[in-house]
Amino acid sequence: MKLEERLQDRTQWTTAGRCPVERAMGLVGSRNAMLAMREAFYGTTRFDDFAERVGMSPATTSSNLKALTEAGLLERRPYREAGTRTRDEYVLTEAGVDLMPVVLALFAWGSRHAGETPGVDVVHAGCGEAVEVRATCAGGHQLESDDVELRVRSR
Amino acid sequence: MKLEERLQDRTQWTTAGRCPVERAMGLVGSRNAMLAMREAFYGTTRFDDFAERVGMSPATTSSNLKALTEAGLLERRPYREAGTRTRDEYVLTEAGVDLMPVVLALFAWGSRHAGETPGVDVVHAGCGEAVEVRATCAGGHQLESDDVELRVRSR
Repeated sequence: MKLEERLQDRTQWTTAGRCPVERAMGLVGSRNAMLAMREAFYGTTRFDDFAERVGMSPATTSSNLKALTEAGLLERRPYREAGTRTRDEYVLTEAGVDLMPVVLALFAWGSRHAGETPGVDVVHAGCGEAVEVRATCAGGHQLESDDVELRVRSR
Repeated sequence: MKLEERLQDRTQWTTAGRCPVERAMGLVGSRNAMLAMREAFYGTTRFDDFAERVGMSPATTSSNLKALTEAGLLERRPYREAGTRTRDEYVLTEAGVDLMPVVLALFAWGSRHAGETPGVDVVHAGCGEAVEVRATCAGGHQLESDDVELRVRSR
């Protein structure tokens, strides 16, 4: 990554407390929160299924689903099965769906660099090729790490 | 995301302990580890600079840089300034550089969904357009969330 000339002396600026990476990690930066989001992408919506598949106690499941709901990544939706009381399930919001590149990027990185992987792949449903997560720009260019630059916001 | 037919009954399979997302979060899934990686992308290499810019105590800086080095994202490189003893700095490995899509995806998500953002943008150095992180496939297709499918690995 490059830094714009005005940013090259890193002792002269900080994004502490306001960095988007820091804020995002504050909301989804724990194992349990990220795996709950993975489960939501896999189609999990119900409390007991989040608990079982992520491996969380009921109390931890409750606090994580509450935090993800308050952060706007999940929303509660009531459902009722015959003969039981109404409960809430948790469905992805637009902001939640928007996190998918983060989860897919972690999946891709973990598959390459973090040891033994499970017997599943994430692929393009249409053509079957492996999913990759790449930096591109709004101008349509594919970017390598040296093509990315941090700049002072102009607006 | 879609699930292949054999995976649709989520009570019948688990990736617990071997999920690439879980493994990746085990290595870089804390605020401090992820912000240390952000700093490495910004060009930070020295112990005191990681501590200052991430906001970590010396002990926390030490444990995070050690863990990231052992996980293969950073490597130590000796340096010496005139009149001082030789010290180590920490530089990105190939696996470390490979994490950039994760950090950029968190930056992009946090900028859109996590409140006030700092006065910096990540752009394509060549054309100045904002960096986006997108799921694509090895076949060159850009993917929306519904185009992504989880399948049993065939090999």
